[in-house]
Amino acid sequence: MIAVVGAGKCSKKLRDMASEVGRYVAEHGGVIVCGGMGGIMEGAARGAKEAGGLTIGILPTDSRDDANEYIDIVIPTGFGEARNIMVVRSADAVVAFPGKYGTLSEMAFALHARKPVVAVNAWRLGEEIHQTQTPIEAAELAMKLAAEEPAPAEDSE
Amino acid sequence: MIAVVGAGKCSKKLRDMASEVGRYVAEHGGVIVCGGMGGIMEGAARGAKEAGGLTIGILPTDSRDDANEYIDIVIPTGFGEARNIMVVRSADAVVAFPGKYGTLSEMAFALHARKPVVAVNAWRLGEEIHQTQTPIEAAELAMKLAAEEPAPAEDSE
Amino acid sequence: MIAVVGAGKCSKKLRDMASEVGRYVAEHGGVIVCGGMGGIMEGAARGAKEAGGLTIGILPTDSRDDANEYIDIVIPTGFGEARNIMVVRSADAVVAFPGKYGTLSEMAFALHARKPVVAVNAWRLGEEIHQTQTPIEAAELAMKLAAEEPAPAEDSE
Amino acid sequence: MIAVVGAGKCSKKLRDMASEVGRYVAEHGGVIVCGGMGGIMEGAARGAKEAGGLTIGILPTDSRDDANEYIDIVIPTGFGEARNIMVVRSADAVVAFPGKYGTLSEMAFALHARKPVVAVNAWRLGEEIHQTQTPIEAAELAMKLAAEEPAPAEDSE
Repeated sequence: MIAVVGAGKCSKKLRDMASEVGRYVAEHGGVIVCGGMGGIMEGAARGAKEAGGLTIGILPTDSRDDANEYIDIVIPTGFGEARNIMVVRSADAVVAFPGKYGTLSEMAFALHARKPVVAVNAWRLGEEIHQTQTPIEAAELAMKLAAEEPAPAEDSE
Repeated sequence: MIAVVGAGKCSKKLRDMASEVGRYVAEHGGVIVCGGMGGIMEGAARGAKEAGGLTIGILPTDSRDDANEYIDIVIPTGFGEARNIMVVRSADAVVAFPGKYGTLSEMAFALHARKPVVAVNAWRLGEEIHQTQTPIEAAELAMKLAAEEPAPAEDSE
Repeated sequence: MIAVVGAGKCSKKLRDMASEVGRYVAEHGGVIVCGGMGGIMEGAARGAKEAGGLTIGILPTDSRDDANEYIDIVIPTGFGEARNIMVVRSADAVVAFPGKYGTLSEMAFALHARKPVVAVNAWRLGEEIHQTQTPIEAAELAMKLAAEEPAPAEDSE
Repeated sequence: MIAVVGAGKCSKKLRDMASEVGRYVAEHGGVIVCGGMGGIMEGAARGAKEAGGLTIGILPTDSRDDANEYIDIVIPTGFGEARNIMVVRSADAVVAFPGKYGTLSEMAFALHARKPVVAVNAWRLGEEIHQTQTPIEAAELAMKLAAEEPAPAEDSE
């Protein structure tokens, strides 16, 4: 289960890059989990659906109508930005695209929960983030890291 | 998407009844969403899996290892009892088995969110709860109500 | 710390009854915690402020501007109805006025968390709810129960 | 209302620095809100109490017994790390001490919610963070920023 995080509004180019991640993950047997809204989230879900994969969207709102059209399983939380925590906790690895502070908080929570984070030109937060240059490279690395034994959880407040 | 709610610890008889609901829902193309733990939740998920269905567990804890073995998609929230709200919001209809106050709160939230609630010997909260006598009757009614147009959401605090 | 729960919209008579609870609690050294919005919550906070007490409002929204004017300490959660859980957990005892399913869920959570619940014509959920006829009687009993040793927490899902 | 965020375990030196912030805020009429646990949170609350101020602790756990001894108003959420969002939303300005990814996520949420963030040797996330060298300088700047008109909220996912 791979989380894809990034801006809710973004360029077509970035959305297409997110689609490449979604497609790669689906083609290799992975499930995409995301925030269920637009931009990067929509791109990733679309790519996964085009490859016949399963997609999960954990929404900030309490209305399933807010999900983008490529989400199979909609979890309408009504918890606002706090849903980012659940997106990250549900995943075995996280692929992060450029985004603002919502994305930064997802990356922070992912590191806090000791999930592997693979960035495609996203926030540079230090050596624990795996930096990559292309979506395919990111997706491949995320799938590889997701398959590894998770590190023991540890309080890193 | 049908939510099944009820006690986390229960008799074998009740767990088997929950399995019947899960099986019926899966056989008729539905997805089971539940709290992912033991008792009624485990029964419902087991029944759905035995019929080849898809199961979603929205956990109170932040560790996916706490999910019962019949859950396909684990959402470890770390939000404690507040995850009940998400279980209910994710569903088109709710089947409620006997349980204590956690179950009562799930039924209350379901009514608050204007989701149809079908009870099998659960809390009697008035006419808005559909009372049934058997799991199959409950599952059938829940699937029927889930297929209907939802009532418009309304503040009923 | 006494929680007052009930409808966000209510008659003037009920709001005045909630004020009586707030005033009694403040006069006897207690703090009022509530959902911070209108109706019963506003009545309780107003009564407490008129008696020089302290009031806490845990809002469903993420904007402090949504609090009623009698709230001293505003906690804007952005968690929607899930904030009800926090209102109840923050309290030593809960006074419940008539309300719909939001109120019912707060009562259910209070029972789940093993907090004493005193009802003034609210949902009748069994013997664990202390039924009273007047606001003063309810406030007096809530303050008394709040001062007692809490029962050990227990899983009652 | 000033939030103080930072590591739950830290050196005595850092805890004393957090105390200086708490004391300054209380002496100048502010209220301290924090996560209610140890380390930086305990330091800030202790300083505020020593100066006769009011302190609020929004706990990750559901037990008020987990609060440090300097917290006046305990909000036991049971929401785990998601409570960081509420700490930040409750504040007019945030003072950030060194911490790991929990602290980073609080800073990210503060920026997301467009709250002013004053850092004392904390994460360097760009120009929107106000960098200071001493606790007193940080507290003074936070109180000044808290008194200013808040920027309009804006989606910055």
